[in-house]
Amino acid sequence: MIYIAGIDSSIAKRVIDIGLGEGTMRSTLSAIFFTIVLGFIISGCQSSHKVLPSTKQNVLFQYSTLDALLQGAYDGNMSCGELKDNGDFGLGTFNALDGEMIVMDGQIYQVASDGVARVMDDSIKIPFATVAYFEADQTVALKQSMDCSELKTYIDDVLPAKNITYGIKIKGLFSYIKTRSVPRQTKPYPLLVDVIKTQPTFEFFQQRGTIVGFRLPEYIGEVNVAGYHFHFLTQDKKAGGHVLECQVKDVIIEIDYMSNWQILLPTT
Amino acid sequence: MIYIAGIDSSIAKRVIDIGLGEGTMRSTLSAIFFTIVLGFIISGCQSSHKVLPSTKQNVLFQYSTLDALLQGAYDGNMSCGELKDNGDFGLGTFNALDGEMIVMDGQIYQVASDGVARVMDDSIKIPFATVAYFEADQTVALKQSMDCSELKTYIDDVLPAKNITYGIKIKGLFSYIKTRSVPRQTKPYPLLVDVIKTQPTFEFFQQRGTIVGFRLPEYIGEVNVAGYHFHFLTQDKKAGGHVLECQVKDVIIEIDYMSNWQILLPTT
Repeated sequence: MIYIAGIDSSIAKRVIDIGLGEGTMRSTLSAIFFTIVLGFIISGCQSSHKVLPSTKQNVLFQYSTLDALLQGAYDGNMSCGELKDNGDFGLGTFNALDGEMIVMDGQIYQVASDGVARVMDDSIKIPFATVAYFEADQTVALKQSMDCSELKTYIDDVLPAKNITYGIKIKGLFSYIKTRSVPRQTKPYPLLVDVIKTQPTFEFFQQRGTIVGFRLPEYIGEVNVAGYHFHFLTQDKKAGGHVLECQVKDVIIEIDYMSNWQILLPTT
Repeated sequence: MIYIAGIDSSIAKRVIDIGLGEGTMRSTLSAIFFTIVLGFIISGCQSSHKVLPSTKQNVLFQYSTLDALLQGAYDGNMSCGELKDNGDFGLGTFNALDGEMIVMDGQIYQVASDGVARVMDDSIKIPFATVAYFEADQTVALKQSMDCSELKTYIDDVLPAKNITYGIKIKGLFSYIKTRSVPRQTKPYPLLVDVIKTQPTFEFFQQRGTIVGFRLPEYIGEVNVAGYHFHFLTQDKKAGGHVLECQVKDVIIEIDYMSNWQILLPTT
């Protein structure tokens, strides 16, 4: 284990891991120095308040499918601007599989393979994302320390049903959180299962931030990620990624019940 | 094999079969006499022309999931009237699993376990259905005789992609078609897999009519029926059911490409 001091103390270590997530065999291959980019890329990606049409409330919207992504369909035709018309909260990725997407408060962030979070322009295209207009139906304050696995069981126990879809927002202090991102790919695209064999991972300690994600039913095949799928953004919005492990310390869990699920399938 | 003469010659034989569909072991247990009800139940279920909002075109709408139905959730809260607000074409079932649903030209038909098709009232509730506003994107005239399995391969070969959803309408002359229905259940509801062990089946020879159905991608788990799912209604709209076997003779195949898939998940 090699610890690298960065400008942002929240990113304490970066390693190259093998494996998709918790429970898969991982081995540290090398440690690579990285630079924290000071400041965000200035973009035209400003959020604006809209009166929502009633049909967009309580709707889980997804563009394309996990199946397509697993098969290497990393280029989509939807823009970040179009995605934001369908939700202000969520997660996904960008064309060429260029990093992890976090949608929070109407802004779209990319955590690229350098571990840095940037606001993305409305013109950027995406191959896969899941978003919603987040409105908490249930709020739980959790001051107990627990790891991601215990956290999921804890949330399962407070949900009214297992067969609908939920938006999950977890905000507060994490004593530990480990994320990954995926590096931008070049054609011919490798399969996702091969890409993540060398995924860069990031560890955070005593970090404030927000997990955005969803809990989808187990019966959904490869339409989307079944069960919990979490992305993370630090409080200062400078880092984050796809959550691999976590230890919550003092968080507020907000749950949005979503019974209307809309899937836009790319035709190309 | 016992052949029973009915008022409607299109229903030539009714047997009790074991098995879900083609390829499963079936054995004839008994033959039961039945009566053809002369005329439909008069209902307030009249279709009306509406100018569709653009968002409803190219949309596959489903209420609840196959998973829920497989688990015995046979009572839903959606009415036939509400279902018709989401499509004029499709299939499903009714509360208490009371027969097979065919939605055609804005009318909702039930083929109950007596094999008779009836127009259903807007107030009738349903647990599961898939509908769309059908508009053919592709039309194929098929004068060649082929069975259901060959027909599916034939349609597969003309589709532009396998990863989106399609509405399929097949109208014309069938040299043979075998359907089933499901009998109305009483609580405590048995699982669907047990219900269909004694499903009534119906055979038609040299029958004119229409298959309504869908082709959904293979990756969808138990969200809905993966692959092809066909229901049938005779030309005189007096009989039909869930298609188990067929031999087409001279038909027009209409295919509606649907890239927007909306799933309304019951919360109870």
